[in-house]
Amino acid sequence: MRKITINDIAKELGVSASTVSRALRDSYEISTATKKKIMAYAKQANYHPNPHAISLRERKSKTIAVVIPDISNYFFTQALYGIEQVALSNQYHVLVYQTHDQLQTEIEFFNHFQNGRVDGVLVSPANNPDRSFEHIERMSEMIPVVCFDRVEPSLQMPYVTCNDYDSSFKATEQLIKKGCKRIFFIGISDIIPVIKLRLNGYKDALKKHGMPILQEDIVMCDAAQLLAERVRWLLAKPTRPDGLVSAVERYTFTVYDVCNELQLKIPTHLRIISFSNTPYAHLLNPSLSTVVLPAGEVGKSASEILFRKINKKDTKFESSNITLNCVLTFRGSSA
Amino acid sequence: MRKITINDIAKELGVSASTVSRALRDSYEISTATKKKIMAYAKQANYHPNPHAISLRERKSKTIAVVIPDISNYFFTQALYGIEQVALSNQYHVLVYQTHDQLQTEIEFFNHFQNGRVDGVLVSPANNPDRSFEHIERMSEMIPVVCFDRVEPSLQMPYVTCNDYDSSFKATEQLIKKGCKRIFFIGISDIIPVIKLRLNGYKDALKKHGMPILQEDIVMCDAAQLLAERVRWLLAKPTRPDGLVSAVERYTFTVYDVCNELQLKIPTHLRIISFSNTPYAHLLNPSLSTVVLPAGEVGKSASEILFRKINKKDTKFESSNITLNCVLTFRGSSA
Repeated sequence: MRKITINDIAKELGVSASTVSRALRDSYEISTATKKKIMAYAKQANYHPNPHAISLRERKSKTIAVVIPDISNYFFTQALYGIEQVALSNQYHVLVYQTHDQLQTEIEFFNHFQNGRVDGVLVSPANNPDRSFEHIERMSEMIPVVCFDRVEPSLQMPYVTCNDYDSSFKATEQLIKKGCKRIFFIGISDIIPVIKLRLNGYKDALKKHGMPILQEDIVMCDAAQLLAERVRWLLAKPTRPDGLVSAVERYTFTVYDVCNELQLKIPTHLRIISFSNTPYAHLLNPSLSTVVLPAGEVGKSASEILFRKINKKDTKFESSNITLNCVLTFRGSSA
Repeated sequence: MRKITINDIAKELGVSASTVSRALRDSYEISTATKKKIMAYAKQANYHPNPHAISLRERKSKTIAVVIPDISNYFFTQALYGIEQVALSNQYHVLVYQTHDQLQTEIEFFNHFQNGRVDGVLVSPANNPDRSFEHIERMSEMIPVVCFDRVEPSLQMPYVTCNDYDSSFKATEQLIKKGCKRIFFIGISDIIPVIKLRLNGYKDALKKHGMPILQEDIVMCDAAQLLAERVRWLLAKPTRPDGLVSAVERYTFTVYDVCNELQLKIPTHLRIISFSNTPYAHLLNPSLSTVVLPAGEVGKSASEILFRKINKKDTKFESSNITLNCVLTFRGSSA
């Protein structure tokens, strides 16, 4: 028996081959009634698509790009793992682009994505003091783009993020409950949306408990070296802080080093809670209290939205914005 | 004044435009005498190449691929950093492909590299029990390929690696000097060349000091879960080992967990030295004695070789094999 083709189905039902093709891919471009009719006929006639022909016809690269600030951050490696699983099940490859938080690098990457090199982009944008997102907006007019973690609400595109404000609020409250009288905050820049949310959670918890918000207790730095200097200065003061909410995992380790240097004991002299996805938080000395982002889930959800758009199964994005919950674990560093 | 072009130089010197073009790129395809003559004329005539035209003419993707087993391994993120620096100075992009140590995934990636998608490949091959390297060999006939870290001497291509044998020998001797009577070894598989070298260093140090090599003390596992079971069994024995040389950083943390579970103290009951590139070894409880690979240097050297080949400045690879030295640091875990 000859294998049935899309042309056979088209001829039989009196529609174009392209209509059959799009209906079988469940495209939004075809009405539900027509899709139903075509799918029913294809099933009855035992039609199976040729995967090689699909790839050729659709002129797809079968590749998505993931643009992230920093590969050595466990949050991103874990998110990537979730992304890869979804990509694999869609028979797609994943290319990883690391911006090192440099806007210019990110712009060059986006230029690189043109001409069908990739079919979709997942991006956690670089630190962007100029608020210039043209490269992302332009790309999203050509191919599907989904933001994750560092989302930019002003960008009209789907995103997946976490309850950063609430988690930071709770982390700060925990330190207050443990008796901290002065809590400082470290981050990269309040221009980065997730950092801003974490900062606001910290501020509002202080306000709720009638504690003052001191400008010198908000330490924003884009380099660990500078951070060490600021923290050293702050912790050497006679009225030094006795608590820390850290929005950046690698900076927390810098604070551990500064405490060792100044012979300050954690948690006796300084209680610490940190946003962190390191799997080794419990092995540190002392073990680290953490706010863990559901990184794998973030990656999975973001790529599921992306593939719905790549496969043209979803045109609306307003409903696609997802917020996932972090997990707080209290250990030795805040005891 | 009109800008001078390659055609002007070719006409003036009576050679073809393609000869001028290749001479100006310092290609090995052009004789030294001809290159000298053309370069001297171009300099005197104040010729400057149009970078956009170069890219178009050469039909280059201006992209290299880096294929690694595991992005969450600090060795690879640090190597990647070295690679990116060299790529940047060559105005190239870096694409990262993660195999999760799966040969089939690696083969699919290599298929993907055809058709000019990338101009060169840096690879640290996946665990390959079947010893089938056809995909790498075939690719290296088409575009430059350089191996790093996990090198495969049977492959006829340049490589950069470390003194894994010597470092493992010294690490094992250090444990013997500290009084360890029975030292076990953990790794992924002795089919992986670097693991084999580390295993041989361990064995030869035991031999040198007249200590027996017990088969049950060589623990090879490709999953942390299985490893935990084997280590739990070994450390629960009445005649349990009192020393460990770990060839795999993430497995070392599994051993820390098993020791906590069995209430064995590191280093009192078990002294540990681990191959590891984590920047936080000194913050662990206890701080971890490490063999640190010069990861950034490995990445830098490997990509320098690759770019010499991409830019056709180097045809011989026999002289390109490089071995770099690890750094041993003894801390609390082996005290």
